[in-house]
Amino acid sequence: MVEHRVKRVVNKMKDLGLSQLLISNPLSIYYLTGYLEHPGERFFALYLNTKGEHKIYANQLFSLEDDLGIDIEWYSDTDDIMKKVAKNMISDDFLGVDNELPAKFLIPLIRLSAAVDYKLGSYCVDYVRGIKDLEEQEKMRIVSHLNDSAMDKLKDLVQEGVTEKEMEAKLLDIYKSLGADGYSFEPIIAFGGNAAVPHHFPDESVLKKGQCILLDIGCKKDMYCADMTRTFFYKSVSEEHRKIYTLVQKANEKAIEAIKPGMKLKDIDKIARDIIDEGGYGKYFTHRLGHFIGMDVHEYGDVSWKNENHVEEGMIFSIEPGIYLEDNLGVRIEDLVLVTSNGCERLNQYQKDLQIIGA
Amino acid sequence: MVEHRVKRVVNKMKDLGLSQLLISNPLSIYYLTGYLEHPGERFFALYLNTKGEHKIYANQLFSLEDDLGIDIEWYSDTDDIMKKVAKNMISDDFLGVDNELPAKFLIPLIRLSAAVDYKLGSYCVDYVRGIKDLEEQEKMRIVSHLNDSAMDKLKDLVQEGVTEKEMEAKLLDIYKSLGADGYSFEPIIAFGGNAAVPHHFPDESVLKKGQCILLDIGCKKDMYCADMTRTFFYKSVSEEHRKIYTLVQKANEKAIEAIKPGMKLKDIDKIARDIIDEGGYGKYFTHRLGHFIGMDVHEYGDVSWKNENHVEEGMIFSIEPGIYLEDNLGVRIEDLVLVTSNGCERLNQYQKDLQIIGA
Repeated sequence: MVEHRVKRVVNKMKDLGLSQLLISNPLSIYYLTGYLEHPGERFFALYLNTKGEHKIYANQLFSLEDDLGIDIEWYSDTDDIMKKVAKNMISDDFLGVDNELPAKFLIPLIRLSAAVDYKLGSYCVDYVRGIKDLEEQEKMRIVSHLNDSAMDKLKDLVQEGVTEKEMEAKLLDIYKSLGADGYSFEPIIAFGGNAAVPHHFPDESVLKKGQCILLDIGCKKDMYCADMTRTFFYKSVSEEHRKIYTLVQKANEKAIEAIKPGMKLKDIDKIARDIIDEGGYGKYFTHRLGHFIGMDVHEYGDVSWKNENHVEEGMIFSIEPGIYLEDNLGVRIEDLVLVTSNGCERLNQYQKDLQIIGA
Repeated sequence: MVEHRVKRVVNKMKDLGLSQLLISNPLSIYYLTGYLEHPGERFFALYLNTKGEHKIYANQLFSLEDDLGIDIEWYSDTDDIMKKVAKNMISDDFLGVDNELPAKFLIPLIRLSAAVDYKLGSYCVDYVRGIKDLEEQEKMRIVSHLNDSAMDKLKDLVQEGVTEKEMEAKLLDIYKSLGADGYSFEPIIAFGGNAAVPHHFPDESVLKKGQCILLDIGCKKDMYCADMTRTFFYKSVSEEHRKIYTLVQKANEKAIEAIKPGMKLKDIDKIARDIIDEGGYGKYFTHRLGHFIGMDVHEYGDVSWKNENHVEEGMIFSIEPGIYLEDNLGVRIEDLVLVTSNGCERLNQYQKDLQIIGA
């Protein structure tokens, strides 16, 4: 068990008046116990309560060791495990469950009157996972630096006649050669008008002079995810495209400069959005400014015009303003930032001044 | 909508006294509508009721077309979609939900009193999916034939000094060159004692004379899954190993010969198990005889000593007896069979007499 993390979750449960919580998300269980399991169809859960009677429910086929520092309830495929789980609950109080708990486990708990009633309690874990501790911060730094190196090598593949798919075909090997474990998400490699399509998949498009090259890539290392976008131009850049690039860069940089604990997340979004609005491209910035990231590439929490929550030290999220003109170009510049006591640290170091490749 | 499949599901609901069912498993929705979506975190469901008021709930970001022949309730990310869903339910009756429905959707339905109470209703769809129609049977034939060809090409890679990992590294390309869409599961390629480990991952083990070579492989084509196991020997085979192989082959063949509609699934398991028992290796046949297969490599239903259900025409399942001796060898011979009106059709044609490679 990772005591300090469990303690923070239990404190959050107390804040919300929740005496017990059943966690089934394998990454959240890994985060709190250090043990990763892919349970498939089998029941695998961490039960926490405010009295400290924590338990893991594990099938005998799992590779879990007994020395995790937490009570393990083993079961076999022939046991009625939900009966055991229900019996161990505080039956005269509410039970929090996480978003992912499948109906095939929740409905038996309800049928067995495991608790008075059931509430969604993911927030207790998601909030805590949103504030990265020092170990996580270091992992996010390392994976982001790998991503910087990968961006450099990927950019070197840009040449006359190259297709998006050809560049994509090399990226996984680039990551592996750098020591990454794999992709954190399927890369977006988009030339020209393709870059204006939100989730364009690399295709046979051939790069042409004057087109933008949007590279939105990320790898994983030690369970943590990188995510960065850079946009280059090939051989030349039109005046309008340069203007757009400069505007996006300014929105990215000014937003990052402004970040500090205590402000609202929506106010970071506003800084970037106002800059793009004032430049006349407001309606072409079609998404939120950023998302939280860690073991999942998109975690709970975002940097959007709706998010009233406050920025806290230890949060890691993306800052990724963009401008997208249909059948013309897309420009996005994305960095990950770690909130510090008085500002933020940029995790991606890859430079972001406009680069014209092959000019 | 695939009317004849929906009709069979609705009939099953009536059999079980369930007036309404909410289906969230994307493959089940594809099976019933012909539309495949990977909804990620967003709500995507097919609602069926016995009055025929069927509906799909779809986010505006999905690529669904309006001409599916079913009422589509579109929603956006800012809508309270579960309120809409609850309102459309028969609130004074039970609601069936499928195993996979996540708590984040089920709990709001309960909170909104969408129905009198909630039951697991996956069986209505899973039972129907277990009986393959002609279109599915043909797809299963095609993908199994691809798998036959792949087995042949994979076997050709067996040579002095080869490792499990080296063979594995070629398999995906073999499948792609044959026109398959990818793996249906991560292949098991195991030499000697590794073949006795149930889910051994290919490693750096080098093939040695006299070892068995267990190849449990499968590909996907047009959404359907192949799955076949063959066990070869390298350069020589000991008398004991030959005896074990012959026993497993006999168990496989006698079980397949016996299959016909009307018998119990457990009785097929018994035929194979008795043969291995009588041969003196009963305790080394450590798993059920087979599993159902289709769009998922493991579907609802199995061929085990516990399954009292009857064999029906159109069922497709594996027949895969095995004998496993720790640190020595594992022999498994697996075929897929399609139950016909008076017997069964073997979908894998790859031959199964003992082969000694490189002898």
